[in-house]
Amino acid sequence: MKFTINRAVFTAKLNDVLRAISSKTTIPILTGLKIAVSDQDVTLTGSDADITIETVLPSSEESTNLTIEQAGAIVLPARFFSEIVKKLPDKLVTIEVSDGFQAQITSGSAAFTINGQDANNYPHLPEIETKDGVSLAGDVLKEIIGQTVLAVSTQESRPILTGIHLVLADNQLFAVATDSHRLAQRKITLPQAVQERYDVIIPGKSLTELSRMITDSQATVELRIAENQVLFVLGNTMFYSRLLEGNYPETSRLIPETEDTTIELNAAGFLAAIERASLLSHESRNNVVKLSVTAADNTAKITGNSPDVGNVEEAITTTSLSGADLEISFNPDYMKDALRSFGQSEIRLSFTSALRPFTLVPTQDAENFIQLITPVRTY
Amino acid sequence: MKFTINRAVFTAKLNDVLRAISSKTTIPILTGLKIAVSDQDVTLTGSDADITIETVLPSSEESTNLTIEQAGAIVLPARFFSEIVKKLPDKLVTIEVSDGFQAQITSGSAAFTINGQDANNYPHLPEIETKDGVSLAGDVLKEIIGQTVLAVSTQESRPILTGIHLVLADNQLFAVATDSHRLAQRKITLPQAVQERYDVIIPGKSLTELSRMITDSQATVELRIAENQVLFVLGNTMFYSRLLEGNYPETSRLIPETEDTTIELNAAGFLAAIERASLLSHESRNNVVKLSVTAADNTAKITGNSPDVGNVEEAITTTSLSGADLEISFNPDYMKDALRSFGQSEIRLSFTSALRPFTLVPTQDAENFIQLITPVRTY
Repeated sequence: MKFTINRAVFTAKLNDVLRAISSKTTIPILTGLKIAVSDQDVTLTGSDADITIETVLPSSEESTNLTIEQAGAIVLPARFFSEIVKKLPDKLVTIEVSDGFQAQITSGSAAFTINGQDANNYPHLPEIETKDGVSLAGDVLKEIIGQTVLAVSTQESRPILTGIHLVLADNQLFAVATDSHRLAQRKITLPQAVQERYDVIIPGKSLTELSRMITDSQATVELRIAENQVLFVLGNTMFYSRLLEGNYPETSRLIPETEDTTIELNAAGFLAAIERASLLSHESRNNVVKLSVTAADNTAKITGNSPDVGNVEEAITTTSLSGADLEISFNPDYMKDALRSFGQSEIRLSFTSALRPFTLVPTQDAENFIQLITPVRTY
Repeated sequence: MKFTINRAVFTAKLNDVLRAISSKTTIPILTGLKIAVSDQDVTLTGSDADITIETVLPSSEESTNLTIEQAGAIVLPARFFSEIVKKLPDKLVTIEVSDGFQAQITSGSAAFTINGQDANNYPHLPEIETKDGVSLAGDVLKEIIGQTVLAVSTQESRPILTGIHLVLADNQLFAVATDSHRLAQRKITLPQAVQERYDVIIPGKSLTELSRMITDSQATVELRIAENQVLFVLGNTMFYSRLLEGNYPETSRLIPETEDTTIELNAAGFLAAIERASLLSHESRNNVVKLSVTAADNTAKITGNSPDVGNVEEAITTTSLSGADLEISFNPDYMKDALRSFGQSEIRLSFTSALRPFTLVPTQDAENFIQLITPVRTY
């Protein structure tokens, strides 16, 4: 095996593959990076058994400056290898395995020899039938992930809730996540109807990593779903994730159908106020902030209190306020996550009572995006 | 006590004072920030008993927008208070203590009440006679600290070595630090001779914090030395540090007077090569890099080796090489620290033998700045 490649291009691709590689793995060879060289291209593979990322650097792409002298394959210690490549002096790097499982890495006047492992011992990739992919705009997919993954559970007690429930049917994509204290739900209309109905649960962690790989240059991402795997194709890079097994709870009945108190406000302004109030609630044992709405004088305020440290009160600027008076307490960290998902938008908060979940939706698009938060009982 | 002040200006000064405040202190009131308000100004004080920082915000300075309604003093929980001030909504903030030790902090529509403590219980500042200060250019002082503090010991076994030895005599300032494995020494000529000779040891930690406070806008820093304290005056801010007691070891005899092998090279280029080699040495138990100089063919190279991981070899570009052949091993982390202190300069490395300390000096100014490193015996 021997090839020479543009170091900056190689480093960028290495960084992508490294996302899948964990130093805490029970399968030692997975701390390694697999490099496979054919006559036409170099393929890098990293995996933590849940996520597998494979990327191809073709010699036909001019920017790679790739010259292949001999095909072959090796597994090299991933973190260490990438640290070396990043710090090398020259524009190009040459990687050669002449004999056994030792790789020579040369660039300018620097020459490293590092011990690798037999690529034949590296696990095989999941196989996914390539027919029937769904094409999504990169920025839309990234937005959907960002808006829902915040509500994914981080607790392993109910593994199914650590995923995002994704349903593709006709020309609709539906994504929902809940940790049972809050819920985030997003719908979009697909440019084209899908052939088949898909109903899968993708680990939140996988989607977070995927989302970091979707850059502005990634116009479209193709989604392919198999029995127990999902594959996202980003140009020359394949991102595989296992699916969670089991039935996702029915979430539609959680969203209240009536509302007794409604306020409309700017998400960013309200977020700043909640951030201030949470400084204080974080000092308190129960970490709650209270929202009080008084219809008669058209005011809303938030209050927080920590017996040891002090208290806070802030009048909230609303653009609209209607319905019954209300006092409701909630975890400000859930509120912050939800508000951040709306960016600078105007949003509507709808409440039924102090002990029932309430919703946040964009005023302009109430149908397709909902954040729901369960209040905290404080008495 | 009641005053209103420009929040951005107040926050900047708070940040300065916070440098002195540690949450890990054995004196609980020192986790607090003291705010003292007179008719003309607001004084903020923070301290961890080793370092004390005091800064004055005068109402006469227009940028402060300071309006004082009532004098007084309070001690407020420092981190928490500063977090609040940073997140407040308005350009101005009002702080009021009307009664007892509770402070009202208001800004725009946000109102915090936080519990404080009696300012009378806050320790008194060290007193330093103000005569006979030494004026130093801010950038020069910052440079001296940066170039010597790297060699300060972090081990408490010999407390005296955790400081920088500073001697001021006639028109010379002399600074040296050593952790007994390496040494950094810097001399400068003062614009004016000092009246008295000073010989003090200032904790490295204090000087690191001081250095962070010296910004480009800080043209001069005044240095005043007393029995067991040193005071640095930066405009309206006073930085006090305790001095270390004891006799600093005689260091001048450590610097070799002869040289058998000399190489000259660019510090930044050599640093990059050492950084690469240290990737490998860090994987090894003994963390050494070897430099080999061969006079006959005018070459120098560095090598590193880790039995488990691999090895590295790199030819070093020198601008001059003379003297006897040499093989010498050293801790690459010491070398990196030393090389960084020279920036982009051309430097000279002078060796006597494989087991004797070697020196690094700027080729252009060999007299006033020396880094010394003790090699590692590898056989």
